Amino acid sequence: MPVSVQLLHQFTLLRPLPQELLAPLSARMGLREFARRAVVVSKDSAAQELGFLVEGRLQGVDFTVDGRSVGLYFVEPGDYFGELSLVDGKPPSEHVVAAAKSTVAFLDGAAARELILTHPPLAQEVMTRLAARVRAGAAQRTLLSLPNPFQRLCVLLLQLPQRNVQGHLEVDQAPTHQEMAIMINASRETVTRAFQVLFTHKVLVREGNALRLLQPDRLRDIAEGRADPPRA
Amino acid sequence: MPVSVQLLHQFTLLRPLPQELLAPLSARMGLREFARRAVVVSKDSAAQELGFLVEGRLQGVDFTVDGRSVGLYFVEPGDYFGELSLVDGKPPSEHVVAAAKSTVAFLDGAAARELILTHPPLAQEVMTRLAARVRAGAAQRTLLSLPNPFQRLCVLLLQLPQRNVQGHLEVDQAPTHQEMAIMINASRETVTRAFQVLFTHKVLVREGNALRLLQPDRLRDIAEGRADPPRA
Repeated sequence: MPVSVQLLHQFTLLRPLPQELLAPLSARMGLREFARRAVVVSKDSAAQELGFLVEGRLQGVDFTVDGRSVGLYFVEPGDYFGELSLVDGKPPSEHVVAAAKSTVAFLDGAAARELILTHPPLAQEVMTRLAARVRAGAAQRTLLSLPNPFQRLCVLLLQLPQRNVQGHLEVDQAPTHQEMAIMINASRETVTRAFQVLFTHKVLVREGNALRLLQPDRLRDIAEGRADPPRA
Repeated sequence: MPVSVQLLHQFTLLRPLPQELLAPLSARMGLREFARRAVVVSKDSAAQELGFLVEGRLQGVDFTVDGRSVGLYFVEPGDYFGELSLVDGKPPSEHVVAAAKSTVAFLDGAAARELILTHPPLAQEVMTRLAARVRAGAAQRTLLSLPNPFQRLCVLLLQLPQRNVQGHLEVDQAPTHQEMAIMINASRETVTRAFQVLFTHKVLVREGNALRLLQPDRLRDIAEGRADPPRA
């Protein structure tokens, strides 16, 4: 399916491009649709394409050595994915699957590489994305090197995206206990027990789908090893 | 100290630049010398500069939560460092220290950013470096999520740079047991015991400063959980 110039305006990466480039660009792109749970890009894929999500929701997913799946990031409409393989020519570092029925516009690798490298604002954006991934990896290395799972959970809670709501830090759309267990390399039961302790001591409270951090300093003290986890 | 145009030819990142750019570039750079163990760039530094190593040897170093230092990478003469802060404007993710008496040429951040973004071969090189760091982080996440330290050591041995010597894979300049212990989140004693077992079973042999992998398939089977570690 062809891609209209109109549609390209929706993709934030492409916004800095001059108007006259969009028509030839749209002619090189193609739309594909994916049912929920379909594999959009496989980790073993040799195809190098830059993907742009038109509608739906995608998730980067990897598997642990013992076969548990780990959700790494979400792709929302307007966003792009596939930059890592595009840059270094190696297979993707993870699978991208459709978390909902999705429509994706693909641009072939050679065209995408040339476009990015010859337009400094696009190169800057892709480099910034890669830098963010490097820093997230370093943060996770720090987290996983901690011996105590309760401490790892506190570090993770502080690493999750937060926003200030009425003077309190809140984690929106917190991952499930199972997802957090995989991220901190602990069992689901350990995560659930740790949350019970944190709730009992009013370090956190649940606010609908959000977690409100009532005592962020105490969480930080446990995370950085200055305070022991509270007793159950 | 000023930087000669002659010197710039030594820096691989700058090789694709046209000759006429080198004189104005060298005028914007400055040389600084560092004694062994001196801090070249601090993790808390707000200064954004791209560094080029003229002579000596540098090491990227971070500290674990409990204060142990972790060597992350080496910088050799001709190579550059500081690209992460340059790209995203945030403080460095690690310290860079002089592993030997060193001379470094610095280019200020604004000039370096413009140079990289307006020269596609330079942008490609910096993106490739960042992509390699993303992949190394993902590999370490996989490693640290394994429950068994013997298995983690085998994964690490397979991740270290190898070269083929007379039909055998060899790891040159292997890190010390203490360094490997920190990388795999185990004690130094555990690493030493695991090496004794691997030597006894002729999975590895030491060849001077190198480790020769005599049974790489067996190492891979242990790393990927298909085989148990051999008995002591």
